[in-house]
Amino acid sequence: MPVAPAVNETRQWTRLMAMAEIGGFTDAAGHKGVNRPCLSAEDRRARRLLISWASELGLSVSVDPLANLFLRLEGTDPSAAPVLTGSHMDTQPNGGRFDGIWGVIAGLEAVQAILESGERPKRPIEVVAWTNEEGGRFAPGCMGSMAWSGFKPADTWDAVTDKDGITWADALREHLSAEADLPRRPLGGKPFAYLEAHIEQGPRLEAEGKDIGIVTGIQGSRWFTVEVSGRTDHAGTTPLSLRKDAVQDALRAISALNTLMHDPTDVLRFTVGSIKVWPDTSNSVAERVRFTIDFRHPDNAVLQARGDAIPGVIQAALTACTASVTERFHALPSEFDPMVPAVVEHWASALGLRAMRMPSGAFHDAQFVVPVCPTGMLFVPCRAGVSHHPSEYAEPAALAAGARVLAEALADLANR
Amino acid sequence: MPVAPAVNETRQWTRLMAMAEIGGFTDAAGHKGVNRPCLSAEDRRARRLLISWASELGLSVSVDPLANLFLRLEGTDPSAAPVLTGSHMDTQPNGGRFDGIWGVIAGLEAVQAILESGERPKRPIEVVAWTNEEGGRFAPGCMGSMAWSGFKPADTWDAVTDKDGITWADALREHLSAEADLPRRPLGGKPFAYLEAHIEQGPRLEAEGKDIGIVTGIQGSRWFTVEVSGRTDHAGTTPLSLRKDAVQDALRAISALNTLMHDPTDVLRFTVGSIKVWPDTSNSVAERVRFTIDFRHPDNAVLQARGDAIPGVIQAALTACTASVTERFHALPSEFDPMVPAVVEHWASALGLRAMRMPSGAFHDAQFVVPVCPTGMLFVPCRAGVSHHPSEYAEPAALAAGARVLAEALADLANR
Repeated sequence: MPVAPAVNETRQWTRLMAMAEIGGFTDAAGHKGVNRPCLSAEDRRARRLLISWASELGLSVSVDPLANLFLRLEGTDPSAAPVLTGSHMDTQPNGGRFDGIWGVIAGLEAVQAILESGERPKRPIEVVAWTNEEGGRFAPGCMGSMAWSGFKPADTWDAVTDKDGITWADALREHLSAEADLPRRPLGGKPFAYLEAHIEQGPRLEAEGKDIGIVTGIQGSRWFTVEVSGRTDHAGTTPLSLRKDAVQDALRAISALNTLMHDPTDVLRFTVGSIKVWPDTSNSVAERVRFTIDFRHPDNAVLQARGDAIPGVIQAALTACTASVTERFHALPSEFDPMVPAVVEHWASALGLRAMRMPSGAFHDAQFVVPVCPTGMLFVPCRAGVSHHPSEYAEPAALAAGARVLAEALADLANR
Repeated sequence: MPVAPAVNETRQWTRLMAMAEIGGFTDAAGHKGVNRPCLSAEDRRARRLLISWASELGLSVSVDPLANLFLRLEGTDPSAAPVLTGSHMDTQPNGGRFDGIWGVIAGLEAVQAILESGERPKRPIEVVAWTNEEGGRFAPGCMGSMAWSGFKPADTWDAVTDKDGITWADALREHLSAEADLPRRPLGGKPFAYLEAHIEQGPRLEAEGKDIGIVTGIQGSRWFTVEVSGRTDHAGTTPLSLRKDAVQDALRAISALNTLMHDPTDVLRFTVGSIKVWPDTSNSVAERVRFTIDFRHPDNAVLQARGDAIPGVIQAALTACTASVTERFHALPSEFDPMVPAVVEHWASALGLRAMRMPSGAFHDAQFVVPVCPTGMLFVPCRAGVSHHPSEYAEPAALAAGARVLAEALADLANR
């Protein structure tokens, strides 16, 4: 029975815009952005709104120990392994209205379309909202999916703090106690398949005039924190030759890393996105600088070779200070099992949409589901490839097309 | 009548250590530092302690509209222009126990020695604690002395904010209301002379085995704030060639400034001590970076030429972002009138101390007193030239020697 016609473009858009109010703001350029940190009051309000919609559809709600939130449509065979879909609801601090949240809303839209079309699949379908995909408040990202998949023990990040010094463990405890009324489920599971819908967060689909990206895998990521330690001194009296200036040595280190990471093909991604200085006053030489490295590449050989070279390159660049380099996150490039991408490709074609196969430049919770079950993702185009910014935008029609493919693919998988 | 023998080394040291408790902390290396921001609760406690000692000596206390605090020993001719001495009580965030506060305590010690020796000078002697010399909480520094001298109008910095967003005007209002019980005096005055005692904050006296630095002038300072504006993007998907990465362009700007400021003689002082990044998350390309420049030189021609070149050098270094450059502080190099340095030199010699003439590398409140009256400073050595750090240290005997020269010089000036 076709389910795509029951996808409702306006309903999906209205829900997205309602979600965008929660943590919503308008920037100086008039763009409507969202700042919804994981485990915040805004996150909890967004989750309650999602639950209210799910409850109207008769879906059952449950929460696991990492606060991953599940909405379940029962199958005709409740003992069958479920098909899992979803994404995340947290945003970057200066984030947009689509990254993450659309994958959750699209999952709900797909389930509602299935219900309204009269289709009743064999397998249960579960929509998941993974906790802390962005890593914006607590680094690294993907904690919820990493713990769920067993990639990392659930207590790995207990001591991680946010900018206010609140630990992950405390924030999680506070959050779970605020959701004490919701049924609990254990961590983990063994779905039949996982399919995550997401905006592309890159410029390729728009540039090539495609409606749907059939994601074949995710490039690898390595995150590092570098701490450069020198000595503070009076900015007016201390000769430059006698200083141990942490700002100057951090600058030398980043310059050397730029050289290490040089890539004429422009495939490699290298970002220093956070820098903090102590004591951070204009007339004191810096004693300490902490900066982050976000390094990604689809080729594991490059990811390993250049990533492993980082500490040595930094040490060699220093003139007066010392540095410690800590790797906080290391995700190998992953290839998806061909089954889910094939289903996505089939339905994109059947619905008359223009689709292309592509790797994901961003990492996603899907990356950690790969070892657990056949996994896939589908992308829709976003304007100018921009994400993590208030100007992030995807057309209502493009999102509806994505939800139609998702609905058909989920129904297909749930009947296998 | 000699007053130097009445200087009490232990009393002065005990007072300094009592002051060091207010805002005091011990760092990881076991050094006892002080964090006493201007107009903070700690600042107010320190001022009350100073007032308690001054009141025991019968000095009269008054506060001006910038919260500059004055302790006055009456002269035999109360209508004579007073001799002014003092320094400041605020510290850098990670500061030490001697910078600033010693000049105030030494002034009190000198006055007490004069009283105890039975000397009764013709002119009044006033000990001043200038407000916000450091500029650590509210930039720039020397607000109290700049307003007192008429170098800047008193409301110049009303809108300046600290890290918590508190304005200078509000902090000053709160402070003055907490000191509403203290007599008020108008801003400004016309002293006969000003003599400020301070630790050297540099390595020269220690290296050359001298007890006293006879300061002949202060090098010039120019402070700038640079704001680099780009665009935030997803760190995993956005090709480096398409980015407007504010961190990378700030780094190019600082590298270009390093070249501009290169000085083989190592006389020039150039410091980037504060860097802030927005949104400051590891997996977002930086949209905006703000950094500070502290540039100093004793030669006005160099100070003007290289300082004026800063905006152009930054603009030329940018590849994708824009930048705005704001000059926040501009103090010309100043030469002291020869009178006060000659008095200091006479008494250092008369007391058998080893002295040398030298310019000041740091700026000081004395700089702004220069146009008002004959001005001078005396330095004592500090360990390894370190200041603005918990390891800042000066020997009790060195500080006592400085206080003896100060006491004799003040008594001498006050009898002229």
